[in-house]
Amino acid sequence: MLTYAMEQRGDLSLYEYLYRCIRRDILSGALAAGERLPSKRALAEHLHLSVITVEGAYAQLEAEGYVHTLPRRGFFVSPVERTAPAPTVPAPAAEPEERAWRLDLKRNRVDMARFPVSTWARLTRRVLSEDGAALLRPVPHQGLPALRQAIADDLRHFRGMAADPAQILVGAGAEYLYLLLAQLLGREAVVAVEDPGYPKIRQVYGSLGLPCRPVPLDGQGMDPAALAASGASVAHLSPNHHYPTGLVTPIARRQALLRWAEDTGGYLIEDDYDSELRFTGRPIPTLQSIDRGGRVLYMNTFSQTISPSMRLGFVVLPPALLAEYRRRLDFYACTVPALEQHVLALFLSEGHYERHLARMRKEYRLRRGAVLAAFRASPFAHRIAISEQGAGLHFLLRLETGRSDEALRQRAEGLGVRLGFLSEYAAVPDGAHAHTLVVNYGGLEPAALPEAMALLAEVFAE
Amino acid sequence: MLTYAMEQRGDLSLYEYLYRCIRRDILSGALAAGERLPSKRALAEHLHLSVITVEGAYAQLEAEGYVHTLPRRGFFVSPVERTAPAPTVPAPAAEPEERAWRLDLKRNRVDMARFPVSTWARLTRRVLSEDGAALLRPVPHQGLPALRQAIADDLRHFRGMAADPAQILVGAGAEYLYLLLAQLLGREAVVAVEDPGYPKIRQVYGSLGLPCRPVPLDGQGMDPAALAASGASVAHLSPNHHYPTGLVTPIARRQALLRWAEDTGGYLIEDDYDSELRFTGRPIPTLQSIDRGGRVLYMNTFSQTISPSMRLGFVVLPPALLAEYRRRLDFYACTVPALEQHVLALFLSEGHYERHLARMRKEYRLRRGAVLAAFRASPFAHRIAISEQGAGLHFLLRLETGRSDEALRQRAEGLGVRLGFLSEYAAVPDGAHAHTLVVNYGGLEPAALPEAMALLAEVFAE
Repeated sequence: MLTYAMEQRGDLSLYEYLYRCIRRDILSGALAAGERLPSKRALAEHLHLSVITVEGAYAQLEAEGYVHTLPRRGFFVSPVERTAPAPTVPAPAAEPEERAWRLDLKRNRVDMARFPVSTWARLTRRVLSEDGAALLRPVPHQGLPALRQAIADDLRHFRGMAADPAQILVGAGAEYLYLLLAQLLGREAVVAVEDPGYPKIRQVYGSLGLPCRPVPLDGQGMDPAALAASGASVAHLSPNHHYPTGLVTPIARRQALLRWAEDTGGYLIEDDYDSELRFTGRPIPTLQSIDRGGRVLYMNTFSQTISPSMRLGFVVLPPALLAEYRRRLDFYACTVPALEQHVLALFLSEGHYERHLARMRKEYRLRRGAVLAAFRASPFAHRIAISEQGAGLHFLLRLETGRSDEALRQRAEGLGVRLGFLSEYAAVPDGAHAHTLVVNYGGLEPAALPEAMALLAEVFAE
Repeated sequence: MLTYAMEQRGDLSLYEYLYRCIRRDILSGALAAGERLPSKRALAEHLHLSVITVEGAYAQLEAEGYVHTLPRRGFFVSPVERTAPAPTVPAPAAEPEERAWRLDLKRNRVDMARFPVSTWARLTRRVLSEDGAALLRPVPHQGLPALRQAIADDLRHFRGMAADPAQILVGAGAEYLYLLLAQLLGREAVVAVEDPGYPKIRQVYGSLGLPCRPVPLDGQGMDPAALAASGASVAHLSPNHHYPTGLVTPIARRQALLRWAEDTGGYLIEDDYDSELRFTGRPIPTLQSIDRGGRVLYMNTFSQTISPSMRLGFVVLPPALLAEYRRRLDFYACTVPALEQHVLALFLSEGHYERHLARMRKEYRLRRGAVLAAFRASPFAHRIAISEQGAGLHFLLRLETGRSDEALRQRAEGLGVRLGFLSEYAAVPDGAHAHTLVVNYGGLEPAALPEAMALLAEVFAE
């Protein structure tokens, strides 16, 4: 008869402990396949347990397939593989750690002090207290209607764009939307991307197996002739503020790009990264707002303007692709939690977003001025040329130097400085991109400028 | 000289209105390409404006490419396409509306009254007040460390699974995770899916162009011989509670599936949908917990247990795929907002989740009992056979009927009743699936049962 030291069960219930003991014996082979277990009553008497306890353990073993019953004959051990000693599976690699830099010009940290956290928190509390069940109510796959209406209103008021909330698709950030658009455009699509350009765009399309054709930029953006020659069916562009060059595409070029799309039946994905942080003049009319043929997919996110940790972006689909989306991809549930959508809808519709942007523009205009002045007064001022178009949280800085970008990067890292280079954004290596830094100044506090310039003077020393 | 009625500018600033007037004339052709604009000073005098106003309008027109300057000669109209009248773009299709059903057995609505909204709201307020900046701080791409630790603890305590938080990847719901896993497994992957099974799994893989091989289930789950014959390199399974059949895969079958993966170098995706709502006995050990060869990707979400509107799921990657993920896909930012991750980490680590699950199990066990009793006491009781495995928020009901599933569905819809059929989950049509309803009873309040049975009696009447 099975004999187990029930008093050694520790915190486990009697039923649980008995189940584990028998399972261990089955897995170790001590109980062989086909062997009959003692009847419940017999085992209960033997171990001084109630029949219900044994019944529970047997039922569990049966549910998991360790034993089976034969009618009127009782419980039998099922054929089960022995547990082999675990082979050595390599331990998971330790997570890559973010280094703490003395100066980081490669990545913009959104300045937390600038975001109205207390307003956001207040709106969150309001949604929770006025309608906590909103957390649980299903959200339409394209996103909360109130949020899509607020986005459409914002686009109309501040970008002069006509977008029906029904055309808007809300999703968890730019990369998720790229994934969705790639599926919408179909596996036959060939995507022209800007060169240089944001590498994640190429990475996402590439990861889905869509061929990417890097198209070099001239002084106005993507050249329609080069685009036509590329054989692409879709062009992914940021005409309103190209990253990292800062280029703004003028109206005639925009029209030429639209004509390419109309003539070829192609599409333009207008990726409106960063365009809210334009410091001078009116915003440029978007491609979407001058599109007469329904060839433009407009997308934007709130990552730069609110926080990269609030994953929220949207696409405005032209009618034909909206219909296609509903036909093929509407099975995807909306990826943004209901709470964030409710709060952002209020944040937009009550004007907090507009005020926040106005404050950010003012702050960053001042910061930009201070940063540019510090560069121009630096010991290396005579060796640099800065190109900036009055928009965004970065500018390009071309350095006269005999060193390679890689040598500069290594020397910088030795000094605790992280630099970003234009050459990192190039799909096709091009000597013209060398020696050019992408200076992300979003995290550069004015008080930190003297130390930053001193560090850079060391990095740049010949 | 250009002449505009500045007093008709309405709310617009002088600069803005002047800019619009000139732009309109350029787009209409009234100002031809190559034409020279009046000097700023001359136009300012002519229109009784300040030079700064004209300067602003010209600068904006130049920035947008409508005009250009020639050194020492002034501003000239650029060649720009005329705006053609907008062709008729079809209006976006109206959004499909959710019908209000008198009885909906096709979809489970999570019962809002059961979720501790007030606890969730309290934790949200706590995160916001103790550390509002947490909203803005960057989250590691795999997810917040505190959340991954809490998930690892939960898996250890309640599922007997050993998972290092470094192996865990947090993402915005099951479908997003399917998208990520498809990319991780590579474009050469061929995926075996359960037939019948959850259609979104086939839809997501299919949408990315991965071939899916439906493998029929026998009474224990996916048959390893059929799996081997399918030529698949990956099997996507829910061995702990298959949807919609409720099937639980016994231990010997699990071991056979693992052996298939080890022998072929394949992978098993263990999709642990709904397994928390097991009403009897202990949870079954997961494939992941008996995997010795690093062949199992375990995934689960909080959609069923918390809310489908809180998009949050996770994957536990085996070490080799974790390394592959870090090499190829670590560019994807985490798709879940920081706030939700902080709140869920607290909800898990402070035991609220465990208590919530215990309450849900109790509630739904009672509800399940009441629903089954109502079916068994119904006028059509003699024509139905119910199969249920004591888990999940649904069961299968086989109806003796001469009508087709489609005829039943139509009659039901006419009565305001939505039914789900097993045949809808089949990838390959199979007569054996006919006349079987998938009854999702999550939203069936006991008080509503008499009316529900009366409605179904009408639907089922021969």
